[in-house]
Amino acid sequence: MTTIQQRIAASFAMQGLMTTLGATLTHVGDGEVHITLLYDGRLSQQQGFVHAGAIAAILDTACGYAALTRAPAGSDVVTAEFKINLLRPALGARLMAIGRVVNAGRSLTVCTGEVRAHADGSETHKVVALMQATIATVRTSVSETD
Amino acid sequence: MTTIQQRIAASFAMQGLMTTLGATLTHVGDGEVHITLLYDGRLSQQQGFVHAGAIAAILDTACGYAALTRAPAGSDVVTAEFKINLLRPALGARLMAIGRVVNAGRSLTVCTGEVRAHADGSETHKVVALMQATIATVRTSVSETD
Amino acid sequence: MTTIQQRIAASFAMQGLMTTLGATLTHVGDGEVHITLLYDGRLSQQQGFVHAGAIAAILDTACGYAALTRAPAGSDVVTAEFKINLLRPALGARLMAIGRVVNAGRSLTVCTGEVRAHADGSETHKVVALMQATIATVRTSVSETD
Amino acid sequence: MTTIQQRIAASFAMQGLMTTLGATLTHVGDGEVHITLLYDGRLSQQQGFVHAGAIAAILDTACGYAALTRAPAGSDVVTAEFKINLLRPALGARLMAIGRVVNAGRSLTVCTGEVRAHADGSETHKVVALMQATIATVRTSVSETD
Repeated sequence: MTTIQQRIAASFAMQGLMTTLGATLTHVGDGEVHITLLYDGRLSQQQGFVHAGAIAAILDTACGYAALTRAPAGSDVVTAEFKINLLRPALGARLMAIGRVVNAGRSLTVCTGEVRAHADGSETHKVVALMQATIATVRTSVSETD
Repeated sequence: MTTIQQRIAASFAMQGLMTTLGATLTHVGDGEVHITLLYDGRLSQQQGFVHAGAIAAILDTACGYAALTRAPAGSDVVTAEFKINLLRPALGARLMAIGRVVNAGRSLTVCTGEVRAHADGSETHKVVALMQATIATVRTSVSETD
Repeated sequence: MTTIQQRIAASFAMQGLMTTLGATLTHVGDGEVHITLLYDGRLSQQQGFVHAGAIAAILDTACGYAALTRAPAGSDVVTAEFKINLLRPALGARLMAIGRVVNAGRSLTVCTGEVRAHADGSETHKVVALMQATIATVRTSVSETD
Repeated sequence: MTTIQQRIAASFAMQGLMTTLGATLTHVGDGEVHITLLYDGRLSQQQGFVHAGAIAAILDTACGYAALTRAPAGSDVVTAEFKINLLRPALGARLMAIGRVVNAGRSLTVCTGEVRAHADGSETHKVVALMQATIATVRTSVSETD
């Protein structure tokens, strides 16, 4: 693992919500991060589909870490805002959130993301959600060596 | 409780994610719904604040049910999209999400929402998040008698 | 006029698009700015209503200047992003965009805005659009004396 | 020209604002529409860049017509909402807005769009704005034969 992959894996492990949801970090590339979530009734809304909040959580996290892969050393990221469209009910055994950097500015990074729903064991998918997010880069108070 | 309050309480109880997060439905009024979340490390992002995904989840739910209070009998609501601004770190013992209907159209209802963070036992609060959401009204397949 | 009112009036006068649309700056208060637009077929979309782009233009401008009333001296504002809901067709002799600061941070200010449509000479109105915007504060290169 | 291209060209010609801005419809494909805008000081914000409102106007129009290419005969489209990120100052002799359908539902179509800024005569560009929009399909009152 590269330094940034190690750093993001360590940061992800500190996210209580990701553990609570059962989400896993499945890819960290330059400007692109994937997070996977297996279907569980604990994540549902009232009709049994995965709740928009759980979808937003993994998509926001994927976008934030995608932005972090482009942020200067000694900085962290916080989400300023995001907008999400829910395209269809989130059905499927496995959801994969993909966050990608579109533009990394000095203080703000704009990302897009999508959540793909896969049936069990299937490679084919349907896109169930679309995000456009603004991530702020913040200097961390202690100097870091990554 | 009125019929709509009963219906929303029953629907809320079916949301696996609300139970998983530990959220409670604390107010159902005409066009306004409140959901409360107590701080728990299980809901955190990497810096220990409540994760934007958890905030989005309770705010989206509050907006959806606010819309449902204005929807015709025999219909349910699904979120078409929302946009959320995170104004400051979500700190505080108790978060309250308030969803309000701004305009209820025939097929789309527009809501705004905010999340207020309260210190333990305090009535004063800071607004930590702001939402603008579009909720779609859908006919339910079985006829209902509410 | 206060210094900030003078500064915003001067800035507004430099906006070619506001002149092209026929928009006027009608109120500058602390954290709140109004811009008025009279109906004109030159502003229409294909059905004769005022185009969402014209509505977005006056609302974005109102939000930006509302943010500027809270920005430090020697800074200017640029819109990072906005989200707008069109609630109903923009009909009416006169549209008024109201932009208000919700939270002014060090580098980002979050504003909400609405556009009200008034029939000719009427005080009553309908809200036709709702905005939630993120405005970035930028240092201007030359020092200023306001 | 196909029927849908003719219909969109006719509809575009009825948009007063597009004429006022000097925008032209430059491509109508299946699920994708382009609109071009040449730089003019009449479209500027206070710093001389193209105003976010003008950018939103052409992008919203491109997204709306992209949705219309996928809408059933006898229907028209109206924008329910959009969100736009302004990535950098809109500089360049020529701006091109591209709207694309991501998902066409029965009543709502989700589109993404971007505005590319080209220097005079150049094929290279910078993306200056990004949109995610929800377009509603509405039945038109008179029956149509397209």
